[in-house]
Amino acid sequence: MSEQAKIKIGILGATGTVGQRFITLLADHPFFEIAALGASARSAGQPYPKAVKWKQTSPIPACVKQLVVRECAPEGFEDCKIIFSGLDQEVAGEIEIAFRLAEHAVFSNSKNHRRDPLVPLIVPTVNPSHLSVVTAQRLSLSPALTKGFIVTNANCSTTGLVVPLAALEKAFGPIDKCLVTTLQAISGGGYPGVPSLDILDNVVPYIGGEEEKIEWEAAKILGGILPDGKGFDNHSHSPLTVSAACNRVAVIDGHTECVSVSFVNRPAPTPAQVVKAMEEYTSLAQELGKEKVPSAPDSPLVVLEDQDRPQPRLDRNLQEGACVVVGRIRECPVLDIKFVCLSDNVRIGAATSSIINAELAVAQGVVHV
Amino acid sequence: MSEQAKIKIGILGATGTVGQRFITLLADHPFFEIAALGASARSAGQPYPKAVKWKQTSPIPACVKQLVVRECAPEGFEDCKIIFSGLDQEVAGEIEIAFRLAEHAVFSNSKNHRRDPLVPLIVPTVNPSHLSVVTAQRLSLSPALTKGFIVTNANCSTTGLVVPLAALEKAFGPIDKCLVTTLQAISGGGYPGVPSLDILDNVVPYIGGEEEKIEWEAAKILGGILPDGKGFDNHSHSPLTVSAACNRVAVIDGHTECVSVSFVNRPAPTPAQVVKAMEEYTSLAQELGKEKVPSAPDSPLVVLEDQDRPQPRLDRNLQEGACVVVGRIRECPVLDIKFVCLSDNVRIGAATSSIINAELAVAQGVVHV
Amino acid sequence: MSEQAKIKIGILGATGTVGQRFITLLADHPFFEIAALGASARSAGQPYPKAVKWKQTSPIPACVKQLVVRECAPEGFEDCKIIFSGLDQEVAGEIEIAFRLAEHAVFSNSKNHRRDPLVPLIVPTVNPSHLSVVTAQRLSLSPALTKGFIVTNANCSTTGLVVPLAALEKAFGPIDKCLVTTLQAISGGGYPGVPSLDILDNVVPYIGGEEEKIEWEAAKILGGILPDGKGFDNHSHSPLTVSAACNRVAVIDGHTECVSVSFVNRPAPTPAQVVKAMEEYTSLAQELGKEKVPSAPDSPLVVLEDQDRPQPRLDRNLQEGACVVVGRIRECPVLDIKFVCLSDNVRIGAATSSIINAELAVAQGVVHV
Amino acid sequence: MSEQAKIKIGILGATGTVGQRFITLLADHPFFEIAALGASARSAGQPYPKAVKWKQTSPIPACVKQLVVRECAPEGFEDCKIIFSGLDQEVAGEIEIAFRLAEHAVFSNSKNHRRDPLVPLIVPTVNPSHLSVVTAQRLSLSPALTKGFIVTNANCSTTGLVVPLAALEKAFGPIDKCLVTTLQAISGGGYPGVPSLDILDNVVPYIGGEEEKIEWEAAKILGGILPDGKGFDNHSHSPLTVSAACNRVAVIDGHTECVSVSFVNRPAPTPAQVVKAMEEYTSLAQELGKEKVPSAPDSPLVVLEDQDRPQPRLDRNLQEGACVVVGRIRECPVLDIKFVCLSDNVRIGAATSSIINAELAVAQGVVHV
Repeated sequence: MSEQAKIKIGILGATGTVGQRFITLLADHPFFEIAALGASARSAGQPYPKAVKWKQTSPIPACVKQLVVRECAPEGFEDCKIIFSGLDQEVAGEIEIAFRLAEHAVFSNSKNHRRDPLVPLIVPTVNPSHLSVVTAQRLSLSPALTKGFIVTNANCSTTGLVVPLAALEKAFGPIDKCLVTTLQAISGGGYPGVPSLDILDNVVPYIGGEEEKIEWEAAKILGGILPDGKGFDNHSHSPLTVSAACNRVAVIDGHTECVSVSFVNRPAPTPAQVVKAMEEYTSLAQELGKEKVPSAPDSPLVVLEDQDRPQPRLDRNLQEGACVVVGRIRECPVLDIKFVCLSDNVRIGAATSSIINAELAVAQGVVHV
Repeated sequence: MSEQAKIKIGILGATGTVGQRFITLLADHPFFEIAALGASARSAGQPYPKAVKWKQTSPIPACVKQLVVRECAPEGFEDCKIIFSGLDQEVAGEIEIAFRLAEHAVFSNSKNHRRDPLVPLIVPTVNPSHLSVVTAQRLSLSPALTKGFIVTNANCSTTGLVVPLAALEKAFGPIDKCLVTTLQAISGGGYPGVPSLDILDNVVPYIGGEEEKIEWEAAKILGGILPDGKGFDNHSHSPLTVSAACNRVAVIDGHTECVSVSFVNRPAPTPAQVVKAMEEYTSLAQELGKEKVPSAPDSPLVVLEDQDRPQPRLDRNLQEGACVVVGRIRECPVLDIKFVCLSDNVRIGAATSSIINAELAVAQGVVHV
Repeated sequence: MSEQAKIKIGILGATGTVGQRFITLLADHPFFEIAALGASARSAGQPYPKAVKWKQTSPIPACVKQLVVRECAPEGFEDCKIIFSGLDQEVAGEIEIAFRLAEHAVFSNSKNHRRDPLVPLIVPTVNPSHLSVVTAQRLSLSPALTKGFIVTNANCSTTGLVVPLAALEKAFGPIDKCLVTTLQAISGGGYPGVPSLDILDNVVPYIGGEEEKIEWEAAKILGGILPDGKGFDNHSHSPLTVSAACNRVAVIDGHTECVSVSFVNRPAPTPAQVVKAMEEYTSLAQELGKEKVPSAPDSPLVVLEDQDRPQPRLDRNLQEGACVVVGRIRECPVLDIKFVCLSDNVRIGAATSSIINAELAVAQGVVHV
Repeated sequence: MSEQAKIKIGILGATGTVGQRFITLLADHPFFEIAALGASARSAGQPYPKAVKWKQTSPIPACVKQLVVRECAPEGFEDCKIIFSGLDQEVAGEIEIAFRLAEHAVFSNSKNHRRDPLVPLIVPTVNPSHLSVVTAQRLSLSPALTKGFIVTNANCSTTGLVVPLAALEKAFGPIDKCLVTTLQAISGGGYPGVPSLDILDNVVPYIGGEEEKIEWEAAKILGGILPDGKGFDNHSHSPLTVSAACNRVAVIDGHTECVSVSFVNRPAPTPAQVVKAMEEYTSLAQELGKEKVPSAPDSPLVVLEDQDRPQPRLDRNLQEGACVVVGRIRECPVLDIKFVCLSDNVRIGAATSSIINAELAVAQGVVHV
């Protein structure tokens, strides 16, 4: 794709934590070009470097230094085929609908539309096939849309969980029970987010709404599409029960999750079989290749051998934070198999997922470019 | 008990983390008196303040400032009726046997003798009745002992778990499955222990041997005594399966554990019933009262209402770290009930347990004073 | 003083960080009794436990559980002879003036009135003699007051610095230069205060307004009273220049300060002389004794010998956080002497200072009880 | 330089913290090639991945996966023109001498030879001219060497300090006094290094030997060469007095330093002049260009405008950790100017300095390739 042919994209919530991450990840993208940045009315009208309290570990990319922040309304984003939304849930719902109505392809990190029965909830290395439901989504609106749609990605802690679960279901058939305890990074709470007095020398064994999200989202993502293509089956062919316990810990980036699962099929796989299945797991993004899906990881899952891995500080950067790292695969005395997984909550758990989803949507022709 | 009547005690491993904690906790004890301190040959012969790298948050108590450290051998501890052992597992096994052979009552924090079928493994607010097996222990030796014995307390992370489990079994009958994920404090690794480079901005999802300890010890502690009094039934009347996943987190003191359990009896209790059962749970220590068991907590369990509690930094100090703090009692979609518990790993999880065990043994006449 | 005779006190800003600390410290006070709690209009009317997000490491004291929070206005605090103010600087200025006008003795932690030429700025173990200026303060108002006044305590990082400086000036005459670099605890920023993303694995080398406060306050505190008793000389007899560099670090409580000073008099004292001077330093509070000034430390300064002390986690609790801990006293190649000092910023650096100031004011008859 | 022409290098202490960093930084070097790895006898004979406990945040580079670790003796390193030493000071002294004697060019991170009057102590963006003294060093040995020599780089905290001081002296003439307080990262202590119990929620206001290193090394580095080229003048033309206070803080990488300086020449520069001087400062490495000195930073100093910067977590990665980042340049009430500087202690403060020194030595013909 030549330089001229780059697809213009806009970023909503550009001054926030997720927005800053979108900018960092998209600054050198081979075929997306940041053309517009949206933020609150308070920031609108200011040059981006002045509007933002930049908190990334690399400087503000040159390509956005001259951009003037706009309000989050479709006017001003006309030439952006794709909109990435890092908006807070307080405002994301209506703004994303307005952009969809204006025929934008909206890829959202917010939770607002995840439970909409016609909005795909996509973890890019798990269920890209759900993209096809945007056709039904467009037709369900009145008047029907031709280009606009909303696709969401999953909650950060759900994402880290469902990639290994997808590999397990692909290899061994349905999982019926999953118990997961998370140790989640502070960056998941945004900025200013978690007060330091709450987390230094401490654990907070509660994250509002998080357990419900994991328990509900997993079934939608791991489930299939209804026969008529007009929605999702939420794993109804074989009920999946998930129980989550979520904790905040003093880690900057990277959610660690301790997972136990049981399978419907007997005998359950051995740990060695599970290792093999996870290592061999690939998804559509890998099949399409780096040229079409440049932000995808080489492999959705990386299995580490050392018994004390994965660790967030050491392993969250593997494959630019786009894979899920798994370790300690062993038998569970209560269910069948237990393991630890780690995912970079601000990359594959947030912005990177949106970007891969958009790359897949372009590759599949779902976004009309 | 008058000042003269104080029972002389000795502390082994007195310069280590657990030893320092024993000293802090025993300095003002109403009827125990620190009479001798043992440490490695390297420290022996030195005044205690010179031998120790003191790391407690209160100064070295006056009562041990003049004590000269001795080697860990029975000679030199003759007048100590009770020996508290905070020895490392590398040396604890033989030294504790030597002290038992010299007719000392040994209360050990080390893992070495926990699996001995005649050594009680006692969490003081759970199974003090196991103390009675010391009779069989004494008789099993050749020649039989009259006063000496070894009693161990449990691994720190086991302790925090079995207190709430004991309350649940007392109220609702046997538990058959328990899945626990721990978030353990660095002080559990001793000093120097966990390198800071391993835990700042990090989680280590592995603690060597810890999961096996929890999975095995729980059944011995929660089980009963054999009909002949010569050992333990390890919960064999109703098999208990425990699955543990252990993590080290950046917390100084206080192990947080996320627990899910299922019961044999149907219907399972409701969360409200569980709250009530935990709040009402008491043990022998509470029945005997503060005069006889001064180090025991007012109640073995404290249930907090706020949905984001217990938290280690805020709650580990409740009841001087002698109780287990429970919160977030709710239904588990996979098993029956899930909750969070917190225990101070260096107090009820270590030194305080040994001390209460000794107080109970004195009160019950198991230690001959 | 009999129970009936307890002096009723009120606390403004009672739901905030400093207010919670006031409550914790005053709950068992021998002659002060918490009679009223004030907070924002949003909290007013609610029982205190409901209005507050309690963040102390000990539970809410029983004595305030039944109190209903009031608005911060003199009506409702009529029977409170003494008002402790932990108000935010945004609102403290006018509210404290209103309470003074209503003839309350106001002891404030806020910065608002510290530079008022008739308001004493008192570090209790340094310059309690400044209390006498309240007479001029009362008379300066129109109409003149008979009982009301405002006394402030110093900024937390100033407090930790001036206690050792006072000891040095008492022993060796005036200091002319002082360079101080602080490593300040997050609790100094209140709650929610410092975002965890700003301080985990990080240092913030800037605290707004802090350096100016240290550089200015030190001279007022260490200086004397004008000959006519109507104000302060701000160390004008011998100019004192202070240069401060302030940093926020990942410590919960306890400000560490690295200090270098030079003296006017030659030869400068040796490190050994400085150690002696600091160890021997006492103030009015120590002379009056524990019965009259129960919250004062046994000695204003504690000097530690170990070359790696003081450390905030290990030493901030010495003397209930009411002393300043000093270590590493040695020659400075550039100025004369350098050392490290540590102070508990939420106790001697804040609430404890106010309380001791009030105790001194009662003992001196400045508060009419 | 063609692939064939790559210069073979060896790394001593290859399994340690600095050694791992050397490997990470040299894996893709344009003209150095890792040919041999040395470690203790315990590790020798093992494949590198088996011998090392890898603790970097990127995986072990492919180029060393097949290397077998050797003992640290010249036999086995014959084809390595350059030796990078990350050895512990306990063993570095003699081993480095042995390699020099075997005519290797040794670039050392250890302190052992820094005070040798014929061994250059070089911070690459400050005093590369000191390299010329290796001629005298070679000739001083008996028999004289033709190729071998030892060059050391500075202590990590010295490095961060002297780069801004060099810029100041270049622009404004000699500095006579410098007071520096450091907030140093835990990685400076190696692995396992600082125990987590010492640094979580804590500051350690002491690092053994560190203050002496800063106070002594600064004068050697900032000074010139003796007129006969046979040694260094240690800034004797204008005495430089440095006073350092060193602290360990809970930061992974990146030493923050609060610096105050005074100048010999009057009037002292203004803050604005200092900003300009620092921004304009360049060194030989920048003049030679990236082709010859590929590891050098674009500019030795980066000045940040935001008043709360530099911060280690956000800024240590600027220019791959090869520059020193400066901020908060302002007047000092006691000396002339104060500022904050930040340097990545494991890159420009250690391995990167050695590598740039070697690149400069190759470019200058000091290493015979």
